[in-house]
Amino acid sequence: MTSKPIRATIVGGTGYTGAELVRLVLAHPSLQLASIVGNASAGKSVADVLPSARGIVPGDVQPFEPDAIAEQADVAFCALPHAASAKAVSALRQRGQKVFDLSADFRFEDLAVYEAWYGKHPVPERLSEAVYGLVELHRDELRDADLVAVPGCYPTASTLALAPLVKNGLVRPEGISVDAKSGVSGAGRGVSSATHFSETAEGVRAYKAGAHRHGPEIEQELSRLAGVPIRIAFVPHLLPMTRGILATCYAQPVDSSLTAARCIEAARELYQGSPSVVVLDEGQHPDTLWVRGSNRVHLGYAQDRRGGTVVAMSAIDNLVKGAAGQAIQCLNVRFGFDEGAGLQALAQWP
Amino acid sequence: MTSKPIRATIVGGTGYTGAELVRLVLAHPSLQLASIVGNASAGKSVADVLPSARGIVPGDVQPFEPDAIAEQADVAFCALPHAASAKAVSALRQRGQKVFDLSADFRFEDLAVYEAWYGKHPVPERLSEAVYGLVELHRDELRDADLVAVPGCYPTASTLALAPLVKNGLVRPEGISVDAKSGVSGAGRGVSSATHFSETAEGVRAYKAGAHRHGPEIEQELSRLAGVPIRIAFVPHLLPMTRGILATCYAQPVDSSLTAARCIEAARELYQGSPSVVVLDEGQHPDTLWVRGSNRVHLGYAQDRRGGTVVAMSAIDNLVKGAAGQAIQCLNVRFGFDEGAGLQALAQWP
Amino acid sequence: MTSKPIRATIVGGTGYTGAELVRLVLAHPSLQLASIVGNASAGKSVADVLPSARGIVPGDVQPFEPDAIAEQADVAFCALPHAASAKAVSALRQRGQKVFDLSADFRFEDLAVYEAWYGKHPVPERLSEAVYGLVELHRDELRDADLVAVPGCYPTASTLALAPLVKNGLVRPEGISVDAKSGVSGAGRGVSSATHFSETAEGVRAYKAGAHRHGPEIEQELSRLAGVPIRIAFVPHLLPMTRGILATCYAQPVDSSLTAARCIEAARELYQGSPSVVVLDEGQHPDTLWVRGSNRVHLGYAQDRRGGTVVAMSAIDNLVKGAAGQAIQCLNVRFGFDEGAGLQALAQWP
Amino acid sequence: MTSKPIRATIVGGTGYTGAELVRLVLAHPSLQLASIVGNASAGKSVADVLPSARGIVPGDVQPFEPDAIAEQADVAFCALPHAASAKAVSALRQRGQKVFDLSADFRFEDLAVYEAWYGKHPVPERLSEAVYGLVELHRDELRDADLVAVPGCYPTASTLALAPLVKNGLVRPEGISVDAKSGVSGAGRGVSSATHFSETAEGVRAYKAGAHRHGPEIEQELSRLAGVPIRIAFVPHLLPMTRGILATCYAQPVDSSLTAARCIEAARELYQGSPSVVVLDEGQHPDTLWVRGSNRVHLGYAQDRRGGTVVAMSAIDNLVKGAAGQAIQCLNVRFGFDEGAGLQALAQWP
Repeated sequence: MTSKPIRATIVGGTGYTGAELVRLVLAHPSLQLASIVGNASAGKSVADVLPSARGIVPGDVQPFEPDAIAEQADVAFCALPHAASAKAVSALRQRGQKVFDLSADFRFEDLAVYEAWYGKHPVPERLSEAVYGLVELHRDELRDADLVAVPGCYPTASTLALAPLVKNGLVRPEGISVDAKSGVSGAGRGVSSATHFSETAEGVRAYKAGAHRHGPEIEQELSRLAGVPIRIAFVPHLLPMTRGILATCYAQPVDSSLTAARCIEAARELYQGSPSVVVLDEGQHPDTLWVRGSNRVHLGYAQDRRGGTVVAMSAIDNLVKGAAGQAIQCLNVRFGFDEGAGLQALAQWP
Repeated sequence: MTSKPIRATIVGGTGYTGAELVRLVLAHPSLQLASIVGNASAGKSVADVLPSARGIVPGDVQPFEPDAIAEQADVAFCALPHAASAKAVSALRQRGQKVFDLSADFRFEDLAVYEAWYGKHPVPERLSEAVYGLVELHRDELRDADLVAVPGCYPTASTLALAPLVKNGLVRPEGISVDAKSGVSGAGRGVSSATHFSETAEGVRAYKAGAHRHGPEIEQELSRLAGVPIRIAFVPHLLPMTRGILATCYAQPVDSSLTAARCIEAARELYQGSPSVVVLDEGQHPDTLWVRGSNRVHLGYAQDRRGGTVVAMSAIDNLVKGAAGQAIQCLNVRFGFDEGAGLQALAQWP
Repeated sequence: MTSKPIRATIVGGTGYTGAELVRLVLAHPSLQLASIVGNASAGKSVADVLPSARGIVPGDVQPFEPDAIAEQADVAFCALPHAASAKAVSALRQRGQKVFDLSADFRFEDLAVYEAWYGKHPVPERLSEAVYGLVELHRDELRDADLVAVPGCYPTASTLALAPLVKNGLVRPEGISVDAKSGVSGAGRGVSSATHFSETAEGVRAYKAGAHRHGPEIEQELSRLAGVPIRIAFVPHLLPMTRGILATCYAQPVDSSLTAARCIEAARELYQGSPSVVVLDEGQHPDTLWVRGSNRVHLGYAQDRRGGTVVAMSAIDNLVKGAAGQAIQCLNVRFGFDEGAGLQALAQWP
Repeated sequence: MTSKPIRATIVGGTGYTGAELVRLVLAHPSLQLASIVGNASAGKSVADVLPSARGIVPGDVQPFEPDAIAEQADVAFCALPHAASAKAVSALRQRGQKVFDLSADFRFEDLAVYEAWYGKHPVPERLSEAVYGLVELHRDELRDADLVAVPGCYPTASTLALAPLVKNGLVRPEGISVDAKSGVSGAGRGVSSATHFSETAEGVRAYKAGAHRHGPEIEQELSRLAGVPIRIAFVPHLLPMTRGILATCYAQPVDSSLTAARCIEAARELYQGSPSVVVLDEGQHPDTLWVRGSNRVHLGYAQDRRGGTVVAMSAIDNLVKGAAGQAIQCLNVRFGFDEGAGLQALAQWP
C-alpha cells in the first residue's frame, strides 16, 4: 500500500455496474478513482447521477475522451453496451490502457458465434488479444492480459457450477439444462414495462426460453473444459428481487454410481485456492441472500434420489461476482495483488 | 340458483388455504358457508383469525365435531396436515359427508409410495374410494366421487405442463427435470426462519433438491398418462413473493423434428373445454402475476434453439388453482354445476 | 337480476384502473361490459393489453368514438388523465351517457383551486353538474347524479379517516398532518425511474412533500364537513409494494379529555350503514394487506399517551376503494342497486 | 495501522446487529475480531449461525464468560435484550472492558422514565457512567466514555432530523409528530406472525401508535437540545422491506416566515464536520435505498405550501447507522480514530 495506487477510470459508470465499480474502487487499498465517464450524463454531478455517491464523490461525470482518459488513468473499466464497447475499448487500447471490458464484445473465441448472436463485430482483429475473465478458470492467462473480457452474471454462475462436473467427465455432454433465476437489476437501469415495479413484484416468469445469447457463451467455456462439444438448454427467469442470480443446473451422470459427495469433492478440488468460491456441504442449498453485496459464489450439489439426475446450484450477486467485483478480481490477478484485495467484505446479511 | 344451496364446512379453515376457501365459498352462487372449523383456534372469532373476514363473516371458529358438521353441512373441505386429515376425512365419510381433502393422504394409488414419503397411513382401506382431483385429467371419474384427493400446487403446475407431452409420447420418459418456483405462502401460516421476512425477501434458494415428496406424486400421474414409468428430477425453490408457482420443465424430444408449435397444439387439444386452462401462443411466457388470485393456469412451450430440449412452463396461483380453487372446481364437477362456477373472476392484475 | 343489465364502457381501460374496472364489471350481477376504449392501444386485442383478461375477454380495444359508445353503452367509466378526461366526459354527456369520471377534472367546487393545481379547465361550465363520488359522505346527492367525480386513493383514505373527527369538532382545524403511504401501482402503468423495480424495491421515500395536489382536495371535503376552513400538511410516500394506501393522520384534540374510544364511536356513528367501512376496535391498527383486492376501508384510532395527539389511520386498496371499486359503488347508488353489489368479495389475504 | 489493533468481542453476536458488527469489525483497519458470543448458539460454528460468514469466519460461537472475554478482548459490543444487557455490561465493566451497549439499558438519564417503559433496572448505579452514543450530538463526551449507550434506529433517525429545528428554536415544542417507517429487520431475528413473509410483504401497518417506548427516548434528547420539555407523537410503521428507516417529522414553525431553506441551513451548520450526515438540497427527499448498507444519514427539509407545517425527513440503514455502524462510530471517537474509519463505504445501490 506504500506503492503508488493504480488510477482507474470507469467508462459507462452511471448504470448499476458503474455504481458498484465506484463502490469497489473506493474500497480497494491499491486503486484510486480517476474519473467516471458517461456520455449521456456528461456534465451532471456524480452525486445527481449516482445517489449512493452523494456527499462522497465530488465532481462531474466526464465525456468519453480517450486522450484525457489515457492521461488520467492507468486502467479502464468499460461498462458499455456491446458494439459501443468494442469501439471504446479499441480507442483505449491504442493509447496503451489496460482494459477490463464488461460487455460481450471480447468474450467469444469464435467470431461467427459472436456475430450470430450480437451482429457485426466492430473490431474483430482484437478478439485474439482478449482473455476471458473468469478468474477461477483462466487465472494464469490473466496474469499478463491487457484486455480482459469480464463475463456477466449468467455465464459466471452457470459455468462455475457445472465446471467441476464437465471437467472431470462426471456428467454426459448432452441433456444439460440450466434454469437461471435473476434479480431485476440484471436488466439494468433503463426503464421498461418488464422492469416496472407493479408488473415485476409478486410475479416470476421465464424470458427468451432456449434462445438467450448467454447460452452459447456458457457452452464455449464448458466445451473447452470438457474437451468435447457441450450443448445446454438455457432458460433465464426474472424474479421479484433486486440482486442475485441462482443457477440450478440439471445433468445426467455418466456413471450411475455418481453421488453428490463426489461432485462436492470435485468442486473443492477445482476451486482450491480460489478465495471467492465457497463449496457448501452436502444437504445445504445456496441462497442469493447469503452472498448479497459480496464477490463470493456459493456452490451446492445434490442428486435426485430416484432418477439419478445431478443438480448443481450456484448463487452470486449479479452486480458483484457477476460484474463489478469480477472485474476487480481480474485486475487483482493482472497486477499481482492478492486475488481478494478489496473484495473480502462479508455479504450484507440480511 | 333457485335450488337450495349446498352447505359447506371448512375443516382446518384458519390457514391460508382456509382463508381462500372462505373467500371462494362466499363468492360461489350455489354454496353456503356452514362453518369454519379449526381446533387450535376454536372459540376465537373468525374476524380475529382471518383478517380478511373482519366485518364480513360473523361468529366463531368451531371445534372439530363430526356429528355437528354432518348436521350443518352437505360437504366438507378438509385442509389439515397429512395423517390428521385422513382421520378427520374418515370420520366425516362415515357420516355420509362428501369430502374434498386437500392433504396428501388420498392422492396415492400405491400405499407403499405414500408410506415411503409420509409414514404409516391411518386409514389405508379408504384409498380406493378416492379420486385424484386434477379436474383436467380426471373429469369423468370426479362426477360421482364422494372422496376427492385435491392435489397441491407443485403437482398441479408440473403435471398440467407435462401432460400433453407425455400423453402424446412427444418426449422421452427419462431425463425430465422440473424446476419449480414457489411463493412463500406455499409454506403455510406457521412461522419459521425459512419464511421470516428478513431472511426471505431479496433471496432465492432451492430446498430438498431431488428429495421432495411431490416428486413421486407427479410421477404417478405422468406415468399413468404415458403408460410407461416416468422418473423426474424435481427441485422446488422458494421465491420472495407471497403467491404463485412457476414450473419450468425440461424434457428431451423423442423425435428431433419436434417443435414448440406441436407442443402447443397438443396442449390445446388436451385442454379443449377446460375453462381454467389458457395455452399461450408461441413466444409467450407464463407469468404468475397474470393469474394471481384466479383459478387459471397459463401454459407456455418453447424449445431450445440448438440442443432441442423442450421447455414446458406453467403458472398458477398456489392458493387457488393449487389448493382452494381446485377444490371448488372438483365440487362443481361433482355436483354438476358449471365447471367454472364461482371461479371465473379475473386475476387481480397487477 | 332478471332486469336488463346496464351496459358499461370503460374509457381509458388499458391502465391499472381500467384492468380493475374490467374485473369488477365482469363480476357485477347487473353490469355488462360493452367495450374497452383506449386510443393508444386501439386495434390491439384486449388479451395483449390486459394480461389478466387473456383467454377471457375477447375482442379488441376500441378507439374513442362518442357516438359508437353512446349506442353500445348506458354508462361510461372514464379513466383518463386530467384535461383529456374533461373533454371526453363532455362529449359523452352531450350524448346522454351517465359518466363516472376517475380524473380530477370535476372534483373541485372552486374552479380557481382546480386551475391553480391542474391548469386551465377545458369545460368549466360542467363543474356544477358533478357530484363528488365519495359515497360515504355524498350518498344522497349521488342518487340522481349523471356526472360523478370519483375521488382517488389519497383523498379517499385521508378524508374517510379524518371525517368523523372534523365533523364532530373533536380536533382543531389547524395543525393536521396526513402522512400517506402508497403502493407503486398508484403511479400508474407508465414507466419511469421512480417506479423502476431496482430503484423502488427495498426503499421508501416521500415525494412532493407539502406540495401535492391531493392536499387541496382533502381540504375541500374536510372544510365542508367542519364548516370552517381546514388546512392540512399532506406528505405522500412511495412504498415497495404494488397495492395499498395507508394514511396516518395526526391532529390535536379540542378538548384534552378526548380519547381513542370517543373517536371510534364517532366513526362508527358516521359510517353506520356503510357496507365498505370497517372501524377497528381500540388497539387494532389497519393493514393494507387486510383489504387487498377488496372495496373495504379499515379505520383505526389511537391517541398518543403523553401529548394527546390523535392518530387516525385508514387502509384501502388504491385500485379498488381508491379507484375502480369506488366508481362501481357510486354506480350502485345511482342505479338503486345494493351499495355493495359486486363489491362484497373478501380481500385476497395473504 | 502500524499500532496494535483493538481486539473486539461481540456479545449477542448472532442476530442481525451481530452479523453487521462482524462485517464492520472485519472491515475496520484498526479492529480485530476476538470472539462472537451468544449463549443460545454457543458451540455451533459461526458459519452455521451467520450465513454471510461461511467460508470466512472460522471457529465457534462462544458462551458468555466475562473472564475469558476480558482476557481476549479490549472492548465489547453488547447486542443483548434489555435487562440481560445491563447485567452483562456490568460484568464486563467490572473487568475493565470498554463497552458499547446497543440495548436501551443505559440510554435514559432519568431512571423513572426507564422503569416506566422497561421495568426494573438491574444496575441503576451504572446509569451515570454512560454516555448517549449519538455521536453528532455527544461527540465531546464520548471521547473518554467507557460505557456508551448506543441509540437504536428510531431515535437516531428522528432525533437527527429534528435536532437542528429544536436546537435553534425554529419550531414549537408541542404538536410535533414523528411518522417512522421501518424495514422488517428492525424487529430482529426472532420469528413471529408479524414478521412472517406472507403477512408482511405487500402490506403496511402502524403498530403501538402513540405508545412505543422509543418516544420518550427521542423526547429526552430533543428536550435537552431545546432547553424546554418537548413532547412528540411517535408512530412506528412496518414496511415490506428488510432494511431502512425513514422518519417523516411534522412540526409547527415558531415564526410564520420560516422556510425549508432556513431549516437546511440550520442542519448544515449543526452537522458541519460530521462525516456520516448528508443534508440534501431543497426539493430533494431522502430515500432509504440511497443509504442501504452504509453508515450515512440523509436529511431533507420541506414546508407545506399552504399551512406552513415544517416537514423534516431522515433516512438511515437501521442495522448500520441505527445499530452496528453507530457503535463503531462511537468507538472511533473514543479511541481517537478518524470518526469515519471503517465506515466510509458507499451504500450498495441499488
